Amino acid sequence: MVFGSLSLVLCPLSLVVSPWSVGLGLWYSEVMVMGDENLLQVETQIIALDLPVAGFVLESGKVLSEVSVAYEAYGDLNDERDNVIFICHALTGDAHVAGYHGEDRRSRGWWDSMVGSGKGIDTDHYHVICANVLGGCKGTTGPSSIDPATGVVYGSSFPQITVRDIVNVHVKLLQQLGMENVASVIGGSFGGMQAFEMALCYPDMVKSCICIASAASLSAQALAFDAISQSAIRSDPNWQGGDYYESGKIPADGLSLARKIGHITYLSSDSMTSKFGREKSDQKTVESEGAGDSHLSDFEVGRYLDYQGEKFVNRFDANSYLHITQALDEYDLVERHGTLESAFEKLKSKVLVVALTSDWLFPPEQSSQIANALLRAGKNVSYSILCAPHGHDGFLVDIENLAGMIRAFLPWVGVDKKSAEIKVAKLVPEKKLSEYERIQKLISPGSSVLDLGCGDGTLLSYLRENGQVRGMGVDIKIENIIDVIYKGHDIFQNDVDGGLEMIPDDMYDYAVLSETLQVVKKPRLVLREMLRVAHEGIVTFPNFGKWSHRLHLCMTGRMPKGKAIPHEWYDTPNIHPFTVSDFVDLCKAEGICIEEMFCISSGVIDKFLNRCGFCNAGSSRVLVRITTKERSKGASGKGCTCD
Amino acid sequence: MVFGSLSLVLCPLSLVVSPWSVGLGLWYSEVMVMGDENLLQVETQIIALDLPVAGFVLESGKVLSEVSVAYEAYGDLNDERDNVIFICHALTGDAHVAGYHGEDRRSRGWWDSMVGSGKGIDTDHYHVICANVLGGCKGTTGPSSIDPATGVVYGSSFPQITVRDIVNVHVKLLQQLGMENVASVIGGSFGGMQAFEMALCYPDMVKSCICIASAASLSAQALAFDAISQSAIRSDPNWQGGDYYESGKIPADGLSLARKIGHITYLSSDSMTSKFGREKSDQKTVESEGAGDSHLSDFEVGRYLDYQGEKFVNRFDANSYLHITQALDEYDLVERHGTLESAFEKLKSKVLVVALTSDWLFPPEQSSQIANALLRAGKNVSYSILCAPHGHDGFLVDIENLAGMIRAFLPWVGVDKKSAEIKVAKLVPEKKLSEYERIQKLISPGSSVLDLGCGDGTLLSYLRENGQVRGMGVDIKIENIIDVIYKGHDIFQNDVDGGLEMIPDDMYDYAVLSETLQVVKKPRLVLREMLRVAHEGIVTFPNFGKWSHRLHLCMTGRMPKGKAIPHEWYDTPNIHPFTVSDFVDLCKAEGICIEEMFCISSGVIDKFLNRCGFCNAGSSRVLVRITTKERSKGASGKGCTCD
Repeated sequence: MVFGSLSLVLCPLSLVVSPWSVGLGLWYSEVMVMGDENLLQVETQIIALDLPVAGFVLESGKVLSEVSVAYEAYGDLNDERDNVIFICHALTGDAHVAGYHGEDRRSRGWWDSMVGSGKGIDTDHYHVICANVLGGCKGTTGPSSIDPATGVVYGSSFPQITVRDIVNVHVKLLQQLGMENVASVIGGSFGGMQAFEMALCYPDMVKSCICIASAASLSAQALAFDAISQSAIRSDPNWQGGDYYESGKIPADGLSLARKIGHITYLSSDSMTSKFGREKSDQKTVESEGAGDSHLSDFEVGRYLDYQGEKFVNRFDANSYLHITQALDEYDLVERHGTLESAFEKLKSKVLVVALTSDWLFPPEQSSQIANALLRAGKNVSYSILCAPHGHDGFLVDIENLAGMIRAFLPWVGVDKKSAEIKVAKLVPEKKLSEYERIQKLISPGSSVLDLGCGDGTLLSYLRENGQVRGMGVDIKIENIIDVIYKGHDIFQNDVDGGLEMIPDDMYDYAVLSETLQVVKKPRLVLREMLRVAHEGIVTFPNFGKWSHRLHLCMTGRMPKGKAIPHEWYDTPNIHPFTVSDFVDLCKAEGICIEEMFCISSGVIDKFLNRCGFCNAGSSRVLVRITTKERSKGASGKGCTCD
Repeated sequence: MVFGSLSLVLCPLSLVVSPWSVGLGLWYSEVMVMGDENLLQVETQIIALDLPVAGFVLESGKVLSEVSVAYEAYGDLNDERDNVIFICHALTGDAHVAGYHGEDRRSRGWWDSMVGSGKGIDTDHYHVICANVLGGCKGTTGPSSIDPATGVVYGSSFPQITVRDIVNVHVKLLQQLGMENVASVIGGSFGGMQAFEMALCYPDMVKSCICIASAASLSAQALAFDAISQSAIRSDPNWQGGDYYESGKIPADGLSLARKIGHITYLSSDSMTSKFGREKSDQKTVESEGAGDSHLSDFEVGRYLDYQGEKFVNRFDANSYLHITQALDEYDLVERHGTLESAFEKLKSKVLVVALTSDWLFPPEQSSQIANALLRAGKNVSYSILCAPHGHDGFLVDIENLAGMIRAFLPWVGVDKKSAEIKVAKLVPEKKLSEYERIQKLISPGSSVLDLGCGDGTLLSYLRENGQVRGMGVDIKIENIIDVIYKGHDIFQNDVDGGLEMIPDDMYDYAVLSETLQVVKKPRLVLREMLRVAHEGIVTFPNFGKWSHRLHLCMTGRMPKGKAIPHEWYDTPNIHPFTVSDFVDLCKAEGICIEEMFCISSGVIDKFLNRCGFCNAGSSRVLVRITTKERSKGASGKGCTCD
């Protein structure tokens, strides 16, 4: 099975040992062969951008007269040309995102577990492009490229670049390849910054954006690590101010040290412990012979870092490392736009922000800052914090849920999207259907709904299909997050008890809390928050005051159990059970108006009691619509309805 | 006010700029003057150890023919010579722990906030000693000292040292100063390792040990940072294999880089963010002129690190840095002893282990491993995890609770200890007294008790004084931890819900859970754990099945409230309320035998119901003694008693 055309291959980049010997603007053609075991054979292609006479103008005002870009492509471009996925690589990555080069099966791309046939980014559906960044050393123009003006390597004369410059080059590449639309731009770490920048600068081009383990700017700690790494390179005598290419010596010590520092920051402490612990090698290093330290242990972790440093020196250029980390350091959406909200103002794409639990280089708080600002700016955003034990590198390693989530978020998932939704709507469990109908009746068509503890998003889908309601969910379980995203709703992975601080006042028409109030740690706070973020609240809860529960406690002297509260006292999730009267009392005390109340009964006695007006005794479950006193239209709303 | 004798001072070490010019074995005398504002003027003293002809034999078998030690002393040694506190300094610290040198008020000691009159380590009560480590460069013999055999600086010929060597030198110092007992040895970070090593190697000498933010060995991540730092020094051309002293050039770049890496690891990411954020300096660095990067920002955090690196190069010796970090790397209690438990076998001192929440270099798990192993080894140990936002450096900065805890743990706290205890016992609140009496009656004198959720330790003190009971507490609140330590009990700062995994099977005779079962998340698990770690369990709980509660729910349709359960449904901590019958049912299902049960009533009706045998209706609170079926002596124990 062959994608694209098979043609002349001059020099696959994966075989180039000295990376700064490339970047000559050569043209390579695309070769993609699906081999055995679904392996994808691919070649990096290098294309010279068609530039105006003035050249490529950088943000700094400086000009590059020629720019070459190395890229790889996977999967077929469809006729509508709207199935393009652009992947932005991280600091030291390259265009080789998936498959392998030539016959070398070890030359797997850096995200091969994510990109391919049937994978998270499915090359059966999407035309995937990944390109080396400007300033890099893997085929795209960078400090190790030949300056056409002088005929020698740029070196110290290569201008400073920014994330925006990188993105501008990539967009020019896409346009030159005839792609005016990007179904999704995806990046992790530094790639996440590029993805955002593309979505922000080209809002009409980019339909969706996935930003993984990234940030709106580096933290002070990350800046500090970069500062040390950069100064290690600069203080290497071989660096020579950046013009070391002619000397035959490279600043290997400095670059290796930078890489070693980087490597530590990419891993979680736990993953280093489980990978190396305090294991020692039997072999002594030569170094440890000096200074009377011949008894020193040779720890595996140190040897591993040395190996990583050495390997890196053979594949990366020190000046590229400086230029790219400097672009990373300087990237700051707040500094550029004033606030994150104003940065996102012109954004049109929907966004998925993913944080990784054990990432300490781009900690989850930085991702949630982005997601919260997008929410405040009124954008379509989903946020998830993935359990990823491997630290920042988790986006390359802890792949399973991430792949499921990306697959769910992307527009095609192997079935027609619309029909998938209808299928989902039909899946509403029968016992839930009447409640969903009731909730839907309480909600004006076309309004916006926040579903707290939204589960797998079935209610949101039901409301969308039956009431043209736009919705967002909040839930904590990863399976639910993926399901809800699959159904096309926005969702925040958050504990309802953790607060709804990220949501601005009055953002939604309705907030729904279904069978959750008795489960949360701070029911009163949750009610208050509901009515802060939404005009009205819809709450359903089991009624602990039902006659059978009362009698149960009264007569048997044991904690009540029943259909609506089936758990044993010692393992019940209902940590704050309450009765209808308790709820009414609390609403009074809090200045909350109960606009409508449905008392749901399940037996003959229940119905009788309800009809006699004893709802607190007759209802097994209750559904209320509440609002604040200020917003309440009537004194008492529509009152109580019993079934 | 003058401590010690005022005599000739040749050269206060704080004025020595090139640290390797010292270490000549000079004798300095002690000068300590209490100045204005409680400032303590102090001088570092250097003493030559009285060594046998064979010299000082290191663990490696190598010999130092002369060893000088720099130390400082504070507070008076009492007549019994049993008030000695020895403080072990961290990696780059020195003997100057408190007060100031000469007239220079900026020369405050590195732990001046902790050590002094009325402070955590109170020099009004204790004779405090701190000494520079072997291998250091602040007055104690190290690689920058003169080798008496050659008359030139040791340099590369200085032998490898271990933590045990360092401790042996310090113990020799103490013995030479006439101190055969150490009331407490205290250290943070690398100092914590030394403190442990002293307590382990000199069990009869060391009465107590405080180990803060430390570990039984470095983690893989910490080893990795050390590996990078060490290789930065070794790859500095000025290092010259360790013999750079004659050259006039020092490996400043390498040492500075090592210090910068270290500095990042000492701070939490949050504290770096709040200290520097992404602030920039207006001033451009010279360095940034090169390589076309003239537009680069000069981040404050980078400038700060540069400054720290530079400052460090002026006060520390590169070879000392190598030797001490190597000793740190090699320290591994598990490797030496097989397991931590066997490492602690011969330990006689009681131990306080303190972890810091935001410490990622010596993370809390490493401290808790030590504490758990001490517990398993049957030692007297308390463990606390202090809220410390400043990272590993927190033990120098986040001082308030740490000082309170150390003060409480040390034997004298300004009052006679015994009388303090009696005073505390008298403080038992009257309403608690009858319950304490009941609990005491259930416990055989001289037995061991684990008090889960022990509060301020009043019950433990009551049981100790009235039943010769040895006890340990578990609680989560820091104020309680300090109170319990003050009262002389061991305590673990832990959430009862977090499990009792750290406690071995059958460790205690009794586990007490007072008014806590209904508050925990997993009551059944807590009961199981109680009876795993103790032979018997004593549980008190409010009875939700009391007649008034039942009637309240039944008649008013509202969740019960009353004396024993005073909270509103929405803010009650009682998240798993239950009745006496519920409890009995659960015990049956779990194979737990109720050996004795006291039903506590509070009114006439209660008492009447109880007497009629309706304990589940009549008791407002209940006290039970439980055990496993296997351990139960009778079929049904002593049965139910009502008051």
